Amino acid sequence: MKVAVIGIGLIGGSFARDVKKLHPEVTIVGLDKNQTHLDEAIELQIIDVKGDLDALADADMVYVSIPVNAMVHELPKILDAVGDDTLVMDAGSTKRLICESVAEHPKRRNFMACHPIAGTEFSGPSAALEGLYDGKTMIICEVEKTAFKLQERALAIFQAIGMRIRYMNPEAHDKHIAYVSHLSHISSFMLGKTVIEKEKNERDIFDMAGSGFESTVRLAKSSPDMWTPIFEQNKDNVVETLEEYIQNLTTFKELIQKNDFENVHLEMSNTNKIKQILKGIPLTKK
Amino acid sequence: MKVAVIGIGLIGGSFARDVKKLHPEVTIVGLDKNQTHLDEAIELQIIDVKGDLDALADADMVYVSIPVNAMVHELPKILDAVGDDTLVMDAGSTKRLICESVAEHPKRRNFMACHPIAGTEFSGPSAALEGLYDGKTMIICEVEKTAFKLQERALAIFQAIGMRIRYMNPEAHDKHIAYVSHLSHISSFMLGKTVIEKEKNERDIFDMAGSGFESTVRLAKSSPDMWTPIFEQNKDNVVETLEEYIQNLTTFKELIQKNDFENVHLEMSNTNKIKQILKGIPLTKK
Repeated sequence: MKVAVIGIGLIGGSFARDVKKLHPEVTIVGLDKNQTHLDEAIELQIIDVKGDLDALADADMVYVSIPVNAMVHELPKILDAVGDDTLVMDAGSTKRLICESVAEHPKRRNFMACHPIAGTEFSGPSAALEGLYDGKTMIICEVEKTAFKLQERALAIFQAIGMRIRYMNPEAHDKHIAYVSHLSHISSFMLGKTVIEKEKNERDIFDMAGSGFESTVRLAKSSPDMWTPIFEQNKDNVVETLEEYIQNLTTFKELIQKNDFENVHLEMSNTNKIKQILKGIPLTKK
Repeated sequence: MKVAVIGIGLIGGSFARDVKKLHPEVTIVGLDKNQTHLDEAIELQIIDVKGDLDALADADMVYVSIPVNAMVHELPKILDAVGDDTLVMDAGSTKRLICESVAEHPKRRNFMACHPIAGTEFSGPSAALEGLYDGKTMIICEVEKTAFKLQERALAIFQAIGMRIRYMNPEAHDKHIAYVSHLSHISSFMLGKTVIEKEKNERDIFDMAGSGFESTVRLAKSSPDMWTPIFEQNKDNVVETLEEYIQNLTTFKELIQKNDFENVHLEMSNTNKIKQILKGIPLTKK
């Protein structure tokens, strides 16, 4: 078996590690515009060899995990390069523009639009973890546009690495993911910014920060190179979630200013039900 | 040795567990207006006996961990009831009003104003953890107002349970804690609210949520009974932090709307330095 991974970072590298564990005989070809990452991936035994687009013609499977702005440009070229029997999967955090970028491609049936809900705040090959996908959700969009036997090949590997599958259309994916992922990142980045700005001359103040602050600000460590194009591609949905979030914060602030602490309490009590909701979310192993 | 713990929840119960471990011969008296919590604390062997204010006269140490609105009413009565050689410490998340509530009390020198930066999003005696305080920061305010030999007694126990000590005045405490703790809680509660409101008819959508969402929304599980009075007592500082946070979110949203993704990237890059800052924060063991 030959598997190509394009973009050898946290997501692609973790996929490579899982595939290697399942199929020790596999040859994993790595492609990345960052030569240092490629060298690191070989040293870490995440990939077997470096390659280029020519390596895709006889690959059984190509996993593309690059920033979503690069994805829309590279995916058509990748599909041009693959063989008739090659399965191409992406791991992009947006789905509408990615699906559109290959909608009319003659090899559209070789492509499966995927978004693994897995990750950490770290990036690069050294962040790749065996078992990252275990117990996580894989969202698949427009599954009916992928050739049936390639669907089967994809599902077999996803199930083997422990993922649960959810099917969704690209528009619904982008709308909902703005709430449960993109907004979290922005809330965390701006929380970090607010505190850093205020406390820039008083670094000792961070001695006062506890695990609660650490938890809410964790995502502010995420890669701007990865997240900027996500916000760009999902602009309308992200702006909508931000407006609702800002409105809720403003209302909460006004309740405090009006000394309406009965409703401050009520707002928090109503949100406590997040406890039950979160029980269904698998945690990332650290 | 006799130690009284007033308010047997996460914070008081964890303190009791640590004291018991250090001094197995201690008698721990529990006081709580919630009889179920008291019974539970006895069953869990967190306290030895239930008591009332009469039990404080010959106590060596009294640890008061009740909501901060109750604290300002109860602390003077507690000081009335203690003996001349009893040390009283509070664990309130605000400090200015608490210090003011006992400023003129004849037994002010028996009191030490404390805020342990430790906790989880859970509450009640069953949430109490041995070792919760290990490696955490204890903020002490107005230390010069506490009798010297009682300071020594307090420091000995804090050091024995693994805490590092920071001294601060109550106003500075309340101002900075609004940034590194109170704002995190509100950002998390409102994030939870925004997502729950949007997705109330689509519970399956939470399948799309990953560990990033779980992390940013974790504090939205916190107790409204505990947090409402904190926001009330620290109203001015909390409103100020919220205004800055809302302003930062609004600016970020406008950058996205204007397609100024260069500055979107820059905002996130500038905030990435939170990585270095966070390295100093001890994590709560789960």
